[in-house]
Amino acid sequence: MTMKLFRGARIYTPLATGNRVMSWEKGAILARNGFIEKVGPEEEVLRDLEPAMVEQEVNFGGRCVVPGFVDPHTHMCFSELREQEFALRLSGVSYMEILASGGGILSSVRSLRAASDEKILERTKKNALTALSHGTTTVEIKSGYGLDTASETRMLRLIERAGREIPTTVIPTFMGAHAIPSEFSGDPEGYVDLLVREMIPAVSAECDPPFCDVFCEEGVFTVPQSRRILEAARKHGMKLKIHADEVVDTGGAALAAELGAVSAEHLLAARGENLAKMASEGVIAVLLPATAFSLRKPYADARKMLELGLTVALATDCNPGSSFTQSMPFVFSLAVMNMGMTVEEALAGCTLNAAKAIESDHFCGSLEKNKMADFVVLDGETPAIMAYNSGVSPVLSVYKRGECAAQRLDDWRFCR
Amino acid sequence: MTMKLFRGARIYTPLATGNRVMSWEKGAILARNGFIEKVGPEEEVLRDLEPAMVEQEVNFGGRCVVPGFVDPHTHMCFSELREQEFALRLSGVSYMEILASGGGILSSVRSLRAASDEKILERTKKNALTALSHGTTTVEIKSGYGLDTASETRMLRLIERAGREIPTTVIPTFMGAHAIPSEFSGDPEGYVDLLVREMIPAVSAECDPPFCDVFCEEGVFTVPQSRRILEAARKHGMKLKIHADEVVDTGGAALAAELGAVSAEHLLAARGENLAKMASEGVIAVLLPATAFSLRKPYADARKMLELGLTVALATDCNPGSSFTQSMPFVFSLAVMNMGMTVEEALAGCTLNAAKAIESDHFCGSLEKNKMADFVVLDGETPAIMAYNSGVSPVLSVYKRGECAAQRLDDWRFCR
Repeated sequence: MTMKLFRGARIYTPLATGNRVMSWEKGAILARNGFIEKVGPEEEVLRDLEPAMVEQEVNFGGRCVVPGFVDPHTHMCFSELREQEFALRLSGVSYMEILASGGGILSSVRSLRAASDEKILERTKKNALTALSHGTTTVEIKSGYGLDTASETRMLRLIERAGREIPTTVIPTFMGAHAIPSEFSGDPEGYVDLLVREMIPAVSAECDPPFCDVFCEEGVFTVPQSRRILEAARKHGMKLKIHADEVVDTGGAALAAELGAVSAEHLLAARGENLAKMASEGVIAVLLPATAFSLRKPYADARKMLELGLTVALATDCNPGSSFTQSMPFVFSLAVMNMGMTVEEALAGCTLNAAKAIESDHFCGSLEKNKMADFVVLDGETPAIMAYNSGVSPVLSVYKRGECAAQRLDDWRFCR
Repeated sequence: MTMKLFRGARIYTPLATGNRVMSWEKGAILARNGFIEKVGPEEEVLRDLEPAMVEQEVNFGGRCVVPGFVDPHTHMCFSELREQEFALRLSGVSYMEILASGGGILSSVRSLRAASDEKILERTKKNALTALSHGTTTVEIKSGYGLDTASETRMLRLIERAGREIPTTVIPTFMGAHAIPSEFSGDPEGYVDLLVREMIPAVSAECDPPFCDVFCEEGVFTVPQSRRILEAARKHGMKLKIHADEVVDTGGAALAAELGAVSAEHLLAARGENLAKMASEGVIAVLLPATAFSLRKPYADARKMLELGLTVALATDCNPGSSFTQSMPFVFSLAVMNMGMTVEEALAGCTLNAAKAIESDHFCGSLEKNKMADFVVLDGETPAIMAYNSGVSPVLSVYKRGECAAQRLDDWRFCR
């Protein structure tokens, strides 16, 4: 039995019960074989603990410790950045013009299809390790730059392989319905047929991804198309997610409620009545403030959603087009500064609620007994440091299953 | 003669003449004794260069290289963070309430007066080194948490000492007129008398700071008080700066024009006619978007200022209250995403125009012959990477006078 004791921690964690954030000014975590055995005030954790049972002890000297971040919505498996396209967008070229000139999602599809496994894997791992160094210990990664059966299967395999080769827990989501590939540009129904008849059965048989996501949006997949795709996915055992009402309110939020999806994402344009339906069906709202920042759009109305009783999770949406960030502390700071979320709401959004959005809250998302000992040590006294010291990573070290997975070394070498 | 050759660089730099940003896709920098000997397309820099003269050669492999950032407005010499106060502010407590309960600038004055030299120096150097690791090779640091003659003199000495102990070039500014100290709370004119009759002559004689700055704002120093202080400073050889019209338009921008100040800062509330006066007098506008972000305020109207022909510089305003960030890449990203500045304008704002705002453009702010070989290597192809990969530091390495002053090592240790 290998026990590790982490003490001298100002712990802030949401709790599974009671919808609140707990804090202990002088807290400790006792981990056994990578899982939390005990957590709470230091004196309680130390009570009846035989020193001989502890093989390692770390004192955090009063620094703030929070659960490892869970990023429940990313597209970080891709091959090429789109930095030039971003610069074009900044100079005023519209996304539709960029799409028309061969940019946008379809350029990522072209480059991914042409890339070697090694190249895709390298980029995916680099993204996930950058996320890890910013505190993300569990990450969802979607397919959706393949858009044919072989390429989507390949993506899901590479996503799983990335998860085996780095410390991060990786949760794959099938998103063949991310865009209409150019082969089907005049025939969206043909692509929906392919998804329903061939791709979903095939990826399900070969990769068994836990989730299926659909981009339900004007100009992408209609509500009836999305319903058809998601119902097929459900038949093959996948849980459902929907990119809903990001640009236009097409009723995606209502569809998420109707189908009992686990989550609906974006929701910038969703109507109040449909958000209320989501709330009553327990669909989690996954908000992506870094995307709004990057697209210079208004932020989703988090306060309204919270007032409606929705569970609000936060995510990076990390992708090469609309939101290229791997940092949950940055997402936290946008949620707090620009969406009016409280520190406690934003912390729960980056941890427990994010874990719920990928049905992983039984093993991560909060510092509670029997969950993985995944946590982040911050260079501050409270989680507010993530917004207070804006633009600078507040992460000192990251523990995954009780092991130090990433640590700021001297970080920087200063030569004199 | 020690020559160093830096090649394989996608160089982006403003030029002193012509108000434009130059770029070379395959550029090189030749440095001699820490200064730029030659810069431009690689083949031009290499022409007639005898290999024997080059003692060191570094190839940046096509990565973007920009001038070292110049941060022309900070208050990063202080003793204590105010993280708890920030959390209060987030929860809706107003700055005036925080002031009334002993928070705000005056709490920094209390803690600085009580702190040892070593503690203040440690915090100042930590801030400047964090800034350096984010690319800042020249930084202005203001006094203004002392507010009595001995404490202001001590601050200026510690600011200079910090500059001797780290690679960064540090430019001190005297800002005894940062707030009315509590000793003079009922007698602001008495404090202005102290500034004019005692403090300015004393700090001038003992520290000879190049600049004097005044917080000209409703509830702080009036325009007549600011004029009196600045005229006294000018008599003692200091150049002038003004915190102008941050909250209320009291005419600070007009005062800056009237007195021929080097720069006016903040300017969120400044009237167009006063901005026009600044433009015709060549007063530089120093904008602080991270402060607007941190205070949840509207951003300064950079586009209007640019249209009026103003030279616009950017700065962090790094301080423990209203803007605790050391990162110029973060400031760049806010300027580009939230203030509508182009990549070129924001780059000039973080480099050449910032150098002009502290009259240091003869030795820094652009990659040109005879300037210091101060530059930053970014993990991208263009300066846009600073906004594209938002929330993540894009800085790979920082060179100060041709020496690697800060370098991302493996950066993070990943344990398996």
